[in-house]
Amino acid sequence: MLKPKIKMKKFLTLVMSTVLLGFAASAQEALFQAQNIVSPEVHEDNTVTFRLFAPKAQAVEVTGDFLPSIKMDTPMGQMDGPGKAALTKDANGVWSYKTTVLNPELYGYSFVIDGFTTTDPSNPFLIRDVASATNFFLIGGGQGDLYKTNDIPHGSVSRRWYDSPGLGMDRRITVYTPPGYETSNESYPVLYLLHGAGGDEEAWINLGRTAQILDNLIATGKSKPMIVVMPNGNVIQDAAPGEGNKNFYKPQFMIPKTMDGTYEGAFEDIIRFVESNYRVKADKKNRAIAGLSMGGFHTLHVSRYYPNTFDYIGLFSAAIMPREDATGRVYSNFDQTLKTQQDNGYKLYWIAIGKTDFLYKANQEYLAKLKGMNMPHTYVESEGGHTWRNWRVYLSQFAPQLFQ
Amino acid sequence: MLKPKIKMKKFLTLVMSTVLLGFAASAQEALFQAQNIVSPEVHEDNTVTFRLFAPKAQAVEVTGDFLPSIKMDTPMGQMDGPGKAALTKDANGVWSYKTTVLNPELYGYSFVIDGFTTTDPSNPFLIRDVASATNFFLIGGGQGDLYKTNDIPHGSVSRRWYDSPGLGMDRRITVYTPPGYETSNESYPVLYLLHGAGGDEEAWINLGRTAQILDNLIATGKSKPMIVVMPNGNVIQDAAPGEGNKNFYKPQFMIPKTMDGTYEGAFEDIIRFVESNYRVKADKKNRAIAGLSMGGFHTLHVSRYYPNTFDYIGLFSAAIMPREDATGRVYSNFDQTLKTQQDNGYKLYWIAIGKTDFLYKANQEYLAKLKGMNMPHTYVESEGGHTWRNWRVYLSQFAPQLFQ
Repeated sequence: MLKPKIKMKKFLTLVMSTVLLGFAASAQEALFQAQNIVSPEVHEDNTVTFRLFAPKAQAVEVTGDFLPSIKMDTPMGQMDGPGKAALTKDANGVWSYKTTVLNPELYGYSFVIDGFTTTDPSNPFLIRDVASATNFFLIGGGQGDLYKTNDIPHGSVSRRWYDSPGLGMDRRITVYTPPGYETSNESYPVLYLLHGAGGDEEAWINLGRTAQILDNLIATGKSKPMIVVMPNGNVIQDAAPGEGNKNFYKPQFMIPKTMDGTYEGAFEDIIRFVESNYRVKADKKNRAIAGLSMGGFHTLHVSRYYPNTFDYIGLFSAAIMPREDATGRVYSNFDQTLKTQQDNGYKLYWIAIGKTDFLYKANQEYLAKLKGMNMPHTYVESEGGHTWRNWRVYLSQFAPQLFQ
Repeated sequence: MLKPKIKMKKFLTLVMSTVLLGFAASAQEALFQAQNIVSPEVHEDNTVTFRLFAPKAQAVEVTGDFLPSIKMDTPMGQMDGPGKAALTKDANGVWSYKTTVLNPELYGYSFVIDGFTTTDPSNPFLIRDVASATNFFLIGGGQGDLYKTNDIPHGSVSRRWYDSPGLGMDRRITVYTPPGYETSNESYPVLYLLHGAGGDEEAWINLGRTAQILDNLIATGKSKPMIVVMPNGNVIQDAAPGEGNKNFYKPQFMIPKTMDGTYEGAFEDIIRFVESNYRVKADKKNRAIAGLSMGGFHTLHVSRYYPNTFDYIGLFSAAIMPREDATGRVYSNFDQTLKTQQDNGYKLYWIAIGKTDFLYKANQEYLAKLKGMNMPHTYVESEGGHTWRNWRVYLSQFAPQLFQ
C-alpha cells in the first residue's frame, strides 16, 4: 500500500487552515471571523440570541419583523416599520441580544452596526427579496412546523425552461411535484401559484416555503397531492435575476410590462407546457390558480380571461386593478367576462387580506362589487399587512381546500 | 366596470413606499439603503467598480480573489491570502474602488468596514460556502462565458429525495438533465459529480456552475448530452444545511464519518436510484465519476470499490488518502482492488491539481504509484491552488472527454 505522507488528522488540519486562511477566496475570511460565533441561536423556549463579533463597533442593533413594529413618519402618513433592539458588548468584543419568547414563524433580520445595515456573518442562510438578501431564522411549533423540512416523504422541485410563443422566449419555471409522483402512475391536479411585483420563479419556493408547506400538508392528509407550478410573472424577464440571459444585475422592484395584460394573455403557454410535460388531470376541476399582490391581480385576470379553466381561484393581498385605462384584449370587457366566469361556475373564489394591508380598501371595493353581482366568494380577513408571513399562512389555508 | 380608487401609478407609489419603508420585514430596509447604489458595476472593458454607501465609516476595503494575493504568516508557514484594496469616499458618503481589467471568471468578494468584514448590500447575489455566504460577480468572455446563462437550450435541475438503505435515511440529491431529456426518448450517460468537505448537494450546482457549464458545452457540441448527478457526500447529513431534517443550523466544515468508508460503501444506493428513475444507459462505458478534494477521495475509492462500474474517473485536487489506518471493507485491499480496476480497464483516469495546492505532494505520490503499476492515467497540472476557480475549469476540461 502507498504510504501516504499526509494522514487524516494532518489533512484535516491542512484543509481547515487552507479554508480559514482564505487561500484565494474572500468567502473564507468570513468563515474565519465567524467561526466561534453562533447566531442566531434559537433556544428551546423559543427565545433567540443574536451575537456579533465587532470589537471596534460603537453601537450594534438588530432589526427585524420579530420585534414590535415602530411607527414611522412618511410622506404618506404614519406607517409601521420593523422594530429595533440594541445589542450589548462583552469583554471579548462580542455583542449579543436575547429576544422574548417568539411565536412560531420564519423571521427576517439585519444588524445595524454604527448606523450601517448589514447581514449576520454567522448566519449563512439568506433569501433574496427583490434587490437585497436578508438573513432569516425559523421558530418551529404550530404554524412554524409547516415551514420545516420534517422526516416525511418529500416532493421534488425542478427548475425547467419552457417555450412561450406568446412572449417570444424560453422562460424558466419552478415546479413542485408531490411525493410519489415519479414512481406512481397517477395523474395529479395542478395549482398555479403566482408571485408579486419584484418577485420571480424563485419567490414562492424560497420566501414562500411552498415545498415544505405542501410536503407537510400532504403528509398529514390535509391537502391532496398536487403539482404546484410557479412561473415567472415578469413579461420581459426570462428568469430570475442571476438565472437568466441577463445574468447578474441589480433587480428592479417594478419591471415594465408586468401588469399590461401581456402576461395574462400568454398564460396558456404555461398551461400547455405543464399539461404536455406532466401527468396531470387536465380539466377545470383539477386546476387552481392563486397569487399574491401582483400575482393576485394576475390571478383575477387570468381566471376571468380563461373563464372556464379554473375551479379554484385564490387572491392573496391582491392588487385589485381592473385597469380601466388599459386598451388591450385582456382587460377589456371586464364586467362581462367576470359575469361569464360566474355563470360558468367554480368551486372556490377565495380572497384574503390583512387588516393593515395598504390594499385593504381596494379589496373591500372588489368584495362589494362581487356582492353586488351575487358572485360567490369566500373572504378571509387576517391580522397584519402586505407580508410574506401572511402569504405563507394564506397558502397553508388555501391548499387544503383544493381538489377535495 | 368597477371604478378603482387606486390607479396604476398610485398603486406603484404605494407598493414602493410600503416596500421601501419596510412594512414588516427587515429585508426591506436594506433595499431602501441600497436603492441608488450599483455595486459591483462590471464595465465593458472588464474593469469593475465597487460602491458602498457608508457616510460614517472611517475606512472601507474590498477583499476578494480578483485582487493579487498577499502573503500571510501562519503557523504552517507563509500562505497566500486574498488581496485587499482601499475604497475612497466622495462628498455624498459613497465609497468606491475601480479595479484593473479582470480576466473572465466568477469572483467572490467582501467589504471590510472599519475592520468588520461584511457583505455588499447592493449585491443580492450570494453563494453559501460551508458556513458563510459571500457576494460574487461574473466577468464574461472566454472561460467566463461557460459560467453564463446564454440564449441556448437549457437543461433542467431537480432537487429530489432518494432512499438510501445503506445509510438508513432518505437523502436529497441534485440532478441535472440535459436539454431535450423530457421530450426525447433517448437514454443518456451519467456523470456522478462529488463535492468536497464542507460542501453538499448544493455545492456543484451553485459554486460549480454545473448547469451553465454543461448547457454551454452541450450547445456547442463539445460535450455529449449527459445527466449529471450531484449527491450529498456527508454520511450523517440527509440534505444541505437549511434543506434537511436539522433545518437551519451553522454548518461545520468537517462532518463526522464523511471519510470513513461508509459513504463509498453505500454509493450503490445512488446508482440504483438514478438507474431506476432516469432514462440512462446503465453500463460501464456510460458511467463517469469525478469529485473535488474529499470528492476526489470518494471518487478514487468508489471507482476502485466498484471496480468494473465506471469508464471515466476524474480526480480534481483530490484528497489522496488510502486510509492505511482504516479497518472497514471499503479501504481494505487497496493495492489489490486498484490492480483489479486496472485489469478491468477504463477509458480515462484523469487527475488534475494546481501547482500551489496543499495536496500537490500527495497527488505526486499517487501519480508515482500509478506509474509504478503502469496504471494508465492522464495528468493535468494547472496554476493556482485548492479553489472553485480550478474546479470549474477542471469540469469544463473533463466533461468534453466523456462518452465520446
